[in-house]
Amino acid sequence: MKVVITGGGGFIGRKLAAKLLRQGTLAGADGAQRQIDELVLFDMTPPPADETTDGRIRVVTGDLTDRDLITGLIDADTASVFHLAAVVSAGAEADFELGYQVNLDGTRLVLEACRAQPQAPRLVFASSIAVYGGREIPDVVEDATPLMPQTSYGAQKAIGELLVNDYSRKGYIDGRALRLPTIVVRPGKPNKAASGFASSIIREPLNGIDFECPVRPESEMAVMSPRTVVDAFMHMHDLDAEGLGDSRALLLPGLRVSQAESVAAIGRVAGNRKVGRIDFKIDPDIQAIVDNWPKGSHSARAEALGFKGDASMDDIVQAHIEDELSGPL
Amino acid sequence: MKVVITGGGGFIGRKLAAKLLRQGTLAGADGAQRQIDELVLFDMTPPPADETTDGRIRVVTGDLTDRDLITGLIDADTASVFHLAAVVSAGAEADFELGYQVNLDGTRLVLEACRAQPQAPRLVFASSIAVYGGREIPDVVEDATPLMPQTSYGAQKAIGELLVNDYSRKGYIDGRALRLPTIVVRPGKPNKAASGFASSIIREPLNGIDFECPVRPESEMAVMSPRTVVDAFMHMHDLDAEGLGDSRALLLPGLRVSQAESVAAIGRVAGNRKVGRIDFKIDPDIQAIVDNWPKGSHSARAEALGFKGDASMDDIVQAHIEDELSGPL
Repeated sequence: MKVVITGGGGFIGRKLAAKLLRQGTLAGADGAQRQIDELVLFDMTPPPADETTDGRIRVVTGDLTDRDLITGLIDADTASVFHLAAVVSAGAEADFELGYQVNLDGTRLVLEACRAQPQAPRLVFASSIAVYGGREIPDVVEDATPLMPQTSYGAQKAIGELLVNDYSRKGYIDGRALRLPTIVVRPGKPNKAASGFASSIIREPLNGIDFECPVRPESEMAVMSPRTVVDAFMHMHDLDAEGLGDSRALLLPGLRVSQAESVAAIGRVAGNRKVGRIDFKIDPDIQAIVDNWPKGSHSARAEALGFKGDASMDDIVQAHIEDELSGPL
Repeated sequence: MKVVITGGGGFIGRKLAAKLLRQGTLAGADGAQRQIDELVLFDMTPPPADETTDGRIRVVTGDLTDRDLITGLIDADTASVFHLAAVVSAGAEADFELGYQVNLDGTRLVLEACRAQPQAPRLVFASSIAVYGGREIPDVVEDATPLMPQTSYGAQKAIGELLVNDYSRKGYIDGRALRLPTIVVRPGKPNKAASGFASSIIREPLNGIDFECPVRPESEMAVMSPRTVVDAFMHMHDLDAEGLGDSRALLLPGLRVSQAESVAAIGRVAGNRKVGRIDFKIDPDIQAIVDNWPKGSHSARAEALGFKGDASMDDIVQAHIEDELSGPL
């Protein structure tokens, strides 16, 4: 079978690709596991060359808004699509048109390319807890919490979910959508995302770099580790859609953690590493944004369907050290 | 001020136009009532010529998917847009592409035309209780009932609401969306819509025509009269948006009525008219569709904001006789 990952050059896409290749199979249309013969990684910039040596990988670079390219990307052999590519939150907020072009029009191109195939592909769409928001948002969002996006990114993800549901209802795809909590620890350089500090507060000190956290230590948010979210994508793909009921969109269980707990976890897990210093210097703008985010996410549906969250911040920090900092301690 | 009605040649658009011209004013950007100098009625087919003699009316015919036309329709003078044009439920279900072209892409063209103006226009979008659905739908839908459209039309309306909210949040429009119950009594010929019987069961007998109702007498649905929905559009337009809170979308209060009650209302209101005979001959397909619809709609928000539903089926039948059957009894 042929599998396509849009956003396959990104941080989660690359980890998903690696895990798919290790596992070697995915559920086919009949639910039985089938061998992955070809894994297409589509993105604007390719993954590092040393990650694409496996003979099953094909790298395609280009723009998600390129109709001809997307139409050619998904063909009659394509059994599964993981649609992760997106302009992220801050980007879609800064460039309104680009956000809609990529996150809405690009998603429609992917769905239309699937609809054109004789056998409806399975499609897993990366949505976000940014679909929730507003003045009445509860501390812990749940399946039934009304969608009330407060960013264009969140609106575009909510629209994507509606499209995935409608295309699935019509039988054009066998689609599913996952609402992702904030993923920590992101590797690499700090970015401009408002949520960036949640990764930086772990990543930078473990690299021996001092870090100034822009929100108060008691600020809580719903997080999930890269390992756990990759497992969730694969589990969601293989589920029998019947179990999802009327809505193909599912909220993932985020671990509720404060920044103080992240700091404490580093202390417990870092061992004899020399860690950078963490100070708290509040940025009122970022604090205000974070105060409007859910502090946790709980989904009885996801639990019943066998999805697991991370057990503790210690586990998340430990996994980051193992996966990103050159092997186990 | 200039006001644009898309779908201005349709049944509700024409009634809204007539009421706007009688009233002569609408709230401007500052909330104060301003004179309507120009009322543009846009639709694929124009309203009857005898309805467009008022000097303030300008009729524009064309397609909602015609980018140049829509861009020209809304200009710097346009203070208000009522966006009613849509491919209806059965049409969007039968022609998937047309539904998305008109109901999604067309809506985006209208929103983009508004965004291009120096002063954000007020925009009232006609949504629908078709945004609700699914196996767990309650008998009476409420503000907090999760959106779960089971038709492409419902999905497109839910997407339209998300867009209206996002464009409003960004300050590109001052948008509002109304979720309409089934509107009865529709004048004219019976149509193929699954909800058509709810109008036909009143309209046909009052025209002396026999009617076979395809659902059981006890089948209930949420309905609203044309007069009441026109009032709701105008009230929604003039509201201070602050009162709407985080969501610019509002559920309208539908009257919960059974078909038996419609029949009884005719008996009470028809007076000495010769009425056609009503039989019940169940169509299992239509019965199944109707059994999945909400039986009523209740919105505490709409009530608090001063929206009114219809008081009784007798009132709805009486209003139909007055408005459509050549004057009062």
